[in-house]
Amino acid sequence: MNATLTPQALRHKIRRGDHTGNTSGLAPGHVQCNIVILPTNWADDFLRFCQLNPRPCPLIAMAEAPGHYALPLLGDVDIRTDVPSYRIFRNGVLADEQTDVTALWSEDLVSFALGCSFSFEEALLADGLEVRNMSEGVNVPMYRTNIDCASAGPFAGKMVVSMRPFKAADAIRAVQICTRFPSVHGAPIHLGNPALIGIEHLAEPDYGDAVSLGEDELPVFWACGVTPQVALESAKPQFAITHSPGCMLVTDLLNSKMAVM
Amino acid sequence: MNATLTPQALRHKIRRGDHTGNTSGLAPGHVQCNIVILPTNWADDFLRFCQLNPRPCPLIAMAEAPGHYALPLLGDVDIRTDVPSYRIFRNGVLADEQTDVTALWSEDLVSFALGCSFSFEEALLADGLEVRNMSEGVNVPMYRTNIDCASAGPFAGKMVVSMRPFKAADAIRAVQICTRFPSVHGAPIHLGNPALIGIEHLAEPDYGDAVSLGEDELPVFWACGVTPQVALESAKPQFAITHSPGCMLVTDLLNSKMAVM
Repeated sequence: MNATLTPQALRHKIRRGDHTGNTSGLAPGHVQCNIVILPTNWADDFLRFCQLNPRPCPLIAMAEAPGHYALPLLGDVDIRTDVPSYRIFRNGVLADEQTDVTALWSEDLVSFALGCSFSFEEALLADGLEVRNMSEGVNVPMYRTNIDCASAGPFAGKMVVSMRPFKAADAIRAVQICTRFPSVHGAPIHLGNPALIGIEHLAEPDYGDAVSLGEDELPVFWACGVTPQVALESAKPQFAITHSPGCMLVTDLLNSKMAVM
Repeated sequence: MNATLTPQALRHKIRRGDHTGNTSGLAPGHVQCNIVILPTNWADDFLRFCQLNPRPCPLIAMAEAPGHYALPLLGDVDIRTDVPSYRIFRNGVLADEQTDVTALWSEDLVSFALGCSFSFEEALLADGLEVRNMSEGVNVPMYRTNIDCASAGPFAGKMVVSMRPFKAADAIRAVQICTRFPSVHGAPIHLGNPALIGIEHLAEPDYGDAVSLGEDELPVFWACGVTPQVALESAKPQFAITHSPGCMLVTDLLNSKMAVM
């Protein structure tokens, strides 16, 4: 896979079924999104859930109306085909994984695109910081916390966080860098003692892979886009579609344009 | 002391000798400065020391020429009389404390005004954060670290830091707030494990007073304006004048104007 494909060329490749895997590192400089697709009668509550929990659920775009599979703000997107891999949930339970959901589409479905940590990881790297999960070539470790999300109708649950270790001075720099990017999770929500947010064992993440942590490093925690998936599992809508972990929607938006300053 | 006196009225009171103590909390909203006054042949090196070490030595103003006791950028200042209490150093050793240095003034002296933590403490309080040294009514604890300042001629030494405890989320917020104020020490330089910057015992500060630290709190460290005094003690100029700790020059500048954004 040529990492320097334009977002449009990459989406078209994915649309043709020629790329069905992870999108990490592809189309560098461009925003990638978490995707949630829900029936209309669940969409209003989910929208409110995002509005109430902008750190884990930073909404970047939503379809103009039920049944719309375009997301013109993000490029020439066909949301039914342009994500490399989809997860299909029935009554809150993962039922299937597909590379194209055209056959499952209906006029009743509403699409949401949420910001993703790939954007701020790029900003951290550009500033010379080491992003441990990238240098160790693994998925970022993610943990369920004891932090309650604000609930909206049936959508509720604990916040999921991702963790990256940094020395203190770099952790402070990471706060500064990520503060500029509120629409892709923004500043960390915690650093230091994991037990204070209900994480018992850093070596045993609930999702992703463990990474090494130096004695002179602090674990730094960001609100994570897996949070809405946990809220989905709790709400148990009769039907829902999300992206598969790491297989994001690649958009035409520039990461740099996500900076508020 | 009426805390709501204008900076000018307060300076005039100090000039008359009617206020000779701490200026913490006075003329709220206005910048207070650390003061260093040196003979001309030491001034260039000290200026370079400030330029090389902007976090502990954020230079806000300096006299236009040797012998000038006005600092018009800061208000109608007479630097010989407008600081409540001065320390006189001879060959790097504290020799005297005075409330007026007019009798010691000479055409050879160059005055420097450096930013002070009072400005960012006000910004933290305004954001609803608790500043421990203020709520406990003591001087902020300060520590000599193992962090070398960049040296400039005879001026050299370790960085001195001030410490304020915060819960992690508030520490992250403090980084965001203080980042806006680079000319009054800016963002913290360390947080978490004090031993990593050479501090053995938080309960035994080198200057100021110890404060309580909760089990769910991190110590957060800022570069401190005592650093240039330590560099002075090391450089041992034949003569130098500084403010006495806590007895700052009150200026007409607004703290809010120190924010870079």
